[in-house]
Amino acid sequence: MPRYKLTIEYDGTSYCGWQRQKTDLSVQEEIERAVAGFSGEDATLFGAGRTDAGVHATGQVAHLDLSRDWETDVVRDALNAHLRDAPVSILAVERVGEDFDARFSARQRHYLYRIFNRRAPPALLAGRVWWVSRPLDVEEMHRAAQRLVGTHDFDTFRSAHCQAKNPIRTLEQLDVLRGPGDEIHIHARAQSFLHNQIRSFAGTLKLVGEARWSEADLVAALEARDRTRCGPVAPPDGLYLTQITYGTAPKRTLPAYTPAAAETAPERMR
Amino acid sequence: MPRYKLTIEYDGTSYCGWQRQKTDLSVQEEIERAVAGFSGEDATLFGAGRTDAGVHATGQVAHLDLSRDWETDVVRDALNAHLRDAPVSILAVERVGEDFDARFSARQRHYLYRIFNRRAPPALLAGRVWWVSRPLDVEEMHRAAQRLVGTHDFDTFRSAHCQAKNPIRTLEQLDVLRGPGDEIHIHARAQSFLHNQIRSFAGTLKLVGEARWSEADLVAALEARDRTRCGPVAPPDGLYLTQITYGTAPKRTLPAYTPAAAETAPERMR
Repeated sequence: MPRYKLTIEYDGTSYCGWQRQKTDLSVQEEIERAVAGFSGEDATLFGAGRTDAGVHATGQVAHLDLSRDWETDVVRDALNAHLRDAPVSILAVERVGEDFDARFSARQRHYLYRIFNRRAPPALLAGRVWWVSRPLDVEEMHRAAQRLVGTHDFDTFRSAHCQAKNPIRTLEQLDVLRGPGDEIHIHARAQSFLHNQIRSFAGTLKLVGEARWSEADLVAALEARDRTRCGPVAPPDGLYLTQITYGTAPKRTLPAYTPAAAETAPERMR
Repeated sequence: MPRYKLTIEYDGTSYCGWQRQKTDLSVQEEIERAVAGFSGEDATLFGAGRTDAGVHATGQVAHLDLSRDWETDVVRDALNAHLRDAPVSILAVERVGEDFDARFSARQRHYLYRIFNRRAPPALLAGRVWWVSRPLDVEEMHRAAQRLVGTHDFDTFRSAHCQAKNPIRTLEQLDVLRGPGDEIHIHARAQSFLHNQIRSFAGTLKLVGEARWSEADLVAALEARDRTRCGPVAPPDGLYLTQITYGTAPKRTLPAYTPAAAETAPERMR
């Protein structure tokens, strides 16, 4: 069966998350319905990142198998036609080999967390950012964030519902920068994240930005490996899954798939 | 009575426009309700730009008179508290003299039109941009747009419902530039615009960008002074009132009010 790789953008506000659920509508189910609508096939979609309810994506990746050998542009346009009334858009469709797995072949997951930092609430970015009205010290936040980069036991920064057996992860990047307008952007990158890890970082780094926590407080919380030491979990509104990278070339924006990436089959990951 | 100048951001999607109407909810009425809620006064709001249904603002300006001498920050925060559930945000409140009139003292009105130019529809910017799926030639659009700059009879580029007696306007700026991501931005600036003028420009410039119209076609349409020669009117979704400038210093982003600006009382304008 030909395998297709989809790059997907969505507004997560009205969904229960990426993953199919019995009761509520997920992004996965929304796209699977569109697949059935255009191909007549009940294909299952395998996504690279299981985003939560309200979390958005500008570069989610998923794969699926179809019995027919379609032109990739036809698949993209037909899916978008079926998704016309849904806040989901298929950005690109590529043919990949059978050994490509959107989830297990992923080398790096890239997330963006958008904080909107001004006194007046956002009228045009409601649901798209986390509004923080008190001024934050971006430089302090960035400096403290560097203490989280690297390989650590992140038990403090994960949800009580996190299913991962092992709380050790290697955080490759956690940059806090001024974005456009009144935005502050947190860029996070790792092979995999724990449940609520980035939202836990964002909520805790806000405390640092308000000078309510010092860098030392953050390090102490990390070292405590204790969920109760985490700051408040930031809302899903500001979180975006922006990119999944595959293969061996980390610098390329849309790297080609290489079979080598599939050889590693790490622990089930978000 | 103390006079207050408000700078306002709004998502125009759910409103019938800026101007108060008998049947549908306008942005003006939404804010006037908030004013009544916090001050107990039935004040009338005078806006600088009468935006249409679905048109947004990041820098609308309005003035109103209240009997009490409030702290301006208190007015801003109280209005935002009353507007909590509305897609309207008061960015700033200033005290101005009685001779300041948000509409008639305005020297320049700045608008932005956002085109979203990619094959896949926008999932996250729906209602915020005009989606054009075929690639547009931005350089051609910009070159042609320069033929519209200056003082002209813009009868071709206004709505059949336009109430202005005189269709002559002086267009100070009409720049077409690449924006972030897949956006194309049209920046328009004039002391005043005719009804649907910018949306008529955007729809017509799209024809140029698609190479369906030449620069000469655009000039011929302008010179015809005939509404039927206009391209399609672009949807309101992409249009933003971004700034109103007052006073004599055109380069300042938020110029202080100077009484001299009120001396000119031009024709009633949008």
